[in-house]
Amino acid sequence: MSETTQHHDSEYDPAASSLQGQVDPELMQELLHIRSSIDNIDAALLNMLAERFKCTQRVGWLKARHQLPASDPGRETAQIARLHRLAEEAHLDPVFAEKFLNFIIDEVIRHHEAISETHAAESNR
Amino acid sequence: MSETTQHHDSEYDPAASSLQGQVDPELMQELLHIRSSIDNIDAALLNMLAERFKCTQRVGWLKARHQLPASDPGRETAQIARLHRLAEEAHLDPVFAEKFLNFIIDEVIRHHEAISETHAAESNR
Repeated sequence: MSETTQHHDSEYDPAASSLQGQVDPELMQELLHIRSSIDNIDAALLNMLAERFKCTQRVGWLKARHQLPASDPGRETAQIARLHRLAEEAHLDPVFAEKFLNFIIDEVIRHHEAISETHAAESNR
Repeated sequence: MSETTQHHDSEYDPAASSLQGQVDPELMQELLHIRSSIDNIDAALLNMLAERFKCTQRVGWLKARHQLPASDPGRETAQIARLHRLAEEAHLDPVFAEKFLNFIIDEVIRHHEAISETHAAESNR
């Protein structure tokens, strides 16, 4: 109820919609029902991503400490092939799955560069 | 073992790495241990995404059928604010979380356009 922060202190309204009052209430109920599933899935996705970054942070730290190259092409090729297969099993567009992996990897590389810089700064002290 | 497809028929090797034989075996073991967690999480993420797209496909179909606008700014604003809060709770960069949501939404819009075209084509028959 406090108004000290701009966007994440206010109560979440799962029924927030620009369509409220403009569509049939029964249709609105159906939309909200599906959206509550989407909200649950988004929370699961975010927590899974947080766990994945915990893993890659640890990999980044190991790589920095042992001066290993940031990328591992052998690993990446195997990962992409596996993801294609998993995507097909889940009836997901494999092209999208690969784009998704690349999106995550871009963020991982950003983290690894930060870790590597921190490690270098500490070593040069 | 068949060689009929190019990239997703071969057995996945969780130990695939360009670092194999070039680093201390104990360090390699530690890397592989973390990577097996990353592989588990990736499978979970893909399946969650597939489930999310099932939900948004249904929303897209409802919107097309009832000629509702593709985007819902009121909903999107509430979603982004909630995601920021969830990201902070999970110690995830809120900027990344928002980028992630936008990445997913771009794909959802692509799906909705396809649904809308299919629906229009069917209605014009």
